[in-house]
Amino acid sequence: MTETPSSLRLGIAGLGTVGRGLVRIIEDMADLLSARAGRRIVIRAVSARTRKRDRGIDLSPYAWCDNPVDLAALDDVDAVVELIGGGDGPALALARETLGRGKAFVTANKALIAAHGATLAALAEKNGAPLRFEAAVAGGIPVIKALREGLAGNRVGGLYGILNGTCNYILTRMEEEGLAFDDVLADAQRLGYAEADPTFDIDGIDTAHKTAILAALAFGCAPDMDAVPCEGIRSIAPVDIDYASELGYRIKLLGIARKTAKGLETRVYPAMVPLASPLAQVGGALNAVVIAADPVGQTVYEGFGAGEGPTASAVAADIIDIARGLGGPPLGVPAARLETPVSIPREAHEGRFYMRLRVEDRPGVMADITAGLARAGVSIESLLQRGAALNGGVYVVLTTHMAVEAAVAEALTLFRQLDSVLESPTMIRVEGEPETPA
Amino acid sequence: MTETPSSLRLGIAGLGTVGRGLVRIIEDMADLLSARAGRRIVIRAVSARTRKRDRGIDLSPYAWCDNPVDLAALDDVDAVVELIGGGDGPALALARETLGRGKAFVTANKALIAAHGATLAALAEKNGAPLRFEAAVAGGIPVIKALREGLAGNRVGGLYGILNGTCNYILTRMEEEGLAFDDVLADAQRLGYAEADPTFDIDGIDTAHKTAILAALAFGCAPDMDAVPCEGIRSIAPVDIDYASELGYRIKLLGIARKTAKGLETRVYPAMVPLASPLAQVGGALNAVVIAADPVGQTVYEGFGAGEGPTASAVAADIIDIARGLGGPPLGVPAARLETPVSIPREAHEGRFYMRLRVEDRPGVMADITAGLARAGVSIESLLQRGAALNGGVYVVLTTHMAVEAAVAEALTLFRQLDSVLESPTMIRVEGEPETPA
Repeated sequence: MTETPSSLRLGIAGLGTVGRGLVRIIEDMADLLSARAGRRIVIRAVSARTRKRDRGIDLSPYAWCDNPVDLAALDDVDAVVELIGGGDGPALALARETLGRGKAFVTANKALIAAHGATLAALAEKNGAPLRFEAAVAGGIPVIKALREGLAGNRVGGLYGILNGTCNYILTRMEEEGLAFDDVLADAQRLGYAEADPTFDIDGIDTAHKTAILAALAFGCAPDMDAVPCEGIRSIAPVDIDYASELGYRIKLLGIARKTAKGLETRVYPAMVPLASPLAQVGGALNAVVIAADPVGQTVYEGFGAGEGPTASAVAADIIDIARGLGGPPLGVPAARLETPVSIPREAHEGRFYMRLRVEDRPGVMADITAGLARAGVSIESLLQRGAALNGGVYVVLTTHMAVEAAVAEALTLFRQLDSVLESPTMIRVEGEPETPA
Repeated sequence: MTETPSSLRLGIAGLGTVGRGLVRIIEDMADLLSARAGRRIVIRAVSARTRKRDRGIDLSPYAWCDNPVDLAALDDVDAVVELIGGGDGPALALARETLGRGKAFVTANKALIAAHGATLAALAEKNGAPLRFEAAVAGGIPVIKALREGLAGNRVGGLYGILNGTCNYILTRMEEEGLAFDDVLADAQRLGYAEADPTFDIDGIDTAHKTAILAALAFGCAPDMDAVPCEGIRSIAPVDIDYASELGYRIKLLGIARKTAKGLETRVYPAMVPLASPLAQVGGALNAVVIAADPVGQTVYEGFGAGEGPTASAVAADIIDIARGLGGPPLGVPAARLETPVSIPREAHEGRFYMRLRVEDRPGVMADITAGLARAGVSIESLLQRGAALNGGVYVVLTTHMAVEAAVAEALTLFRQLDSVLESPTMIRVEGEPETPA
């Protein structure tokens, strides 16, 4: 082979933590990347909010664009890497401009792909331009590649993911140290594990973005945030973590996507998972995804879901794929063939449930509770009355057999109307493991 | 897009369990595979030892070759799938013939790739023919893709794998039921979890093949079975499993590949891994691989490593990649750029060790043992004398600080010469987790 393939020339938009990590990979591993990709990968231009800031990397060899969208037009840029973030604005403009010109576009932006994944995939396919977003879900874990390529010979039944390291860190510390949510959150913010405004993470929105993307890849549909009802971890109390443990569970914030005979269910909520299940073992800031598919069975993927190194690793993998000429439809099937599945609404969800009620300690209360469950049509699996609650009354803790969420909601409404129930009851869903298709 | 891309036409050699699973995937999921691959995937011809056998699949639509090598020459076959097995013989002949003709070759054959991976990769590259072998390691877990593509922006420091489901099943049952190796093996054979001749599995040869392949992908070298010293699990006794548990470990058969300042170390041996480590959680017939790389950190991949569905899933993924036109060098870097690393010999291995000695219960014995260790230059981490052994004497169990394997071997030789040591001592290596590059 005498020909020397031309370099892949990058424009990078966004020079925060991940951008810096990517520049380091490309500079420090240039020869290794060239061997692996079959051609050199070089940075030609960069864009960020300010040029001056000291990032610990030398930007002088690269052209500078004040406006990131200008990167797409540069003649010596073949592929644009978007690390700006945000579901609209400059990130979206840059994606459209880049793909519209038939150039490759790599992004770590889950909000962008969750909101515009299908239209951007269609644009990419129309223009023969690669579109890749491995870093958008689960950081350094190559789970998008696994779904799109590694498991392409399977029908997926369902997947469960721990997709937000901040939430998993908080839940892990709450369990290990017996601390309240607010205290751990404050400490996590101090240590840099949580943002100053932690809403996106702890209210589950970040996990919902990622879940919508994984569902699209697993089930061949457009990412659809509207189909992902979302609850975060603010309401998780130490007492529920203790009861979970006693019942053989651990509480994790899950992104869930599963296909049943009734349609596609995508959800984000804190759930009790069995202590012996793979997801229960995933502690601290780690991410993990469990996928059940036919015929492969269950596979599990675990690693760090955020941070400079893991995220830059995923972006680099996309770039190397592009340099190698590895293409294929961004969402696993051509955009024109994406299906519109029947979305199972929240209230039609079937599962098992944990409830905790703080009630007056007097005769008849248990009868009221069991009568409420019977009226709602919810069947009890276990029911315990516990010693005095911290703030008066006693706790009643119960788990249900399989029930429809609407029925459980009805039971909770009935409970709230009882004089003997001293505060709004807590409900946490109980999960097993995702199931392969029947 | 008005063009209709041509079908990818397969010839399949070998119609055992995996071949049947593959035929089922291709027939049952034809439309889905076509959507994912961008073209239809069809079987044109098959070959197996006998045509008559009832395999539960209808072979009448497909041409039949008595000699598998003839598949490569068929004009209407674009890609050959080899499921015959064996490191040489017809599998190798078929690989050479297929790649020599510039056609794609997909195999599940670890012995073939471990022995001939580099020369076949060179042949494939010379002829512009894809060569893929995802199913050769860890069955349904897409770990070869993860190493070659998903982690391509990393330097790998090391990897540990549980790569043989039979061994992991046996070790798991020994631990859970307190049974002896021979009893579990006999039962596993009865249940079909172990072959009638289990040598390849339980003596670690199968794991060594897979380790050689993973090492090649991780470190950009040719697979080299001669560089993989290999010990199996025959000598693992229930008492060692019990002591491991007491010391906070679980015994697993590991395939290990790691790069240190001194060179590349590839090994297969049963090792004690910390109970809290990801590999310790992997029970029964599951496989798992833990990879430590920079900058991604540690990632873990888990699933079923054998059987019809998992293996066929991996073969199907390779076929879909080929149909999509995803290429790239089979071993991650071009064959001409594969490096020849310095191989760290077995005796230069540095690690921690567990030893169990059955000794006479009399004064002076502990002094002899500690003197032997001192003479060999091995430093003791913990030393326990235990109650009476089943067959007379008492057990002395010790763990070492970091030591060189040659020194431990010297200590074991000294122990064998002591009159007070009643049987050849047991030694099991103690492992932590693989480390990212410094």
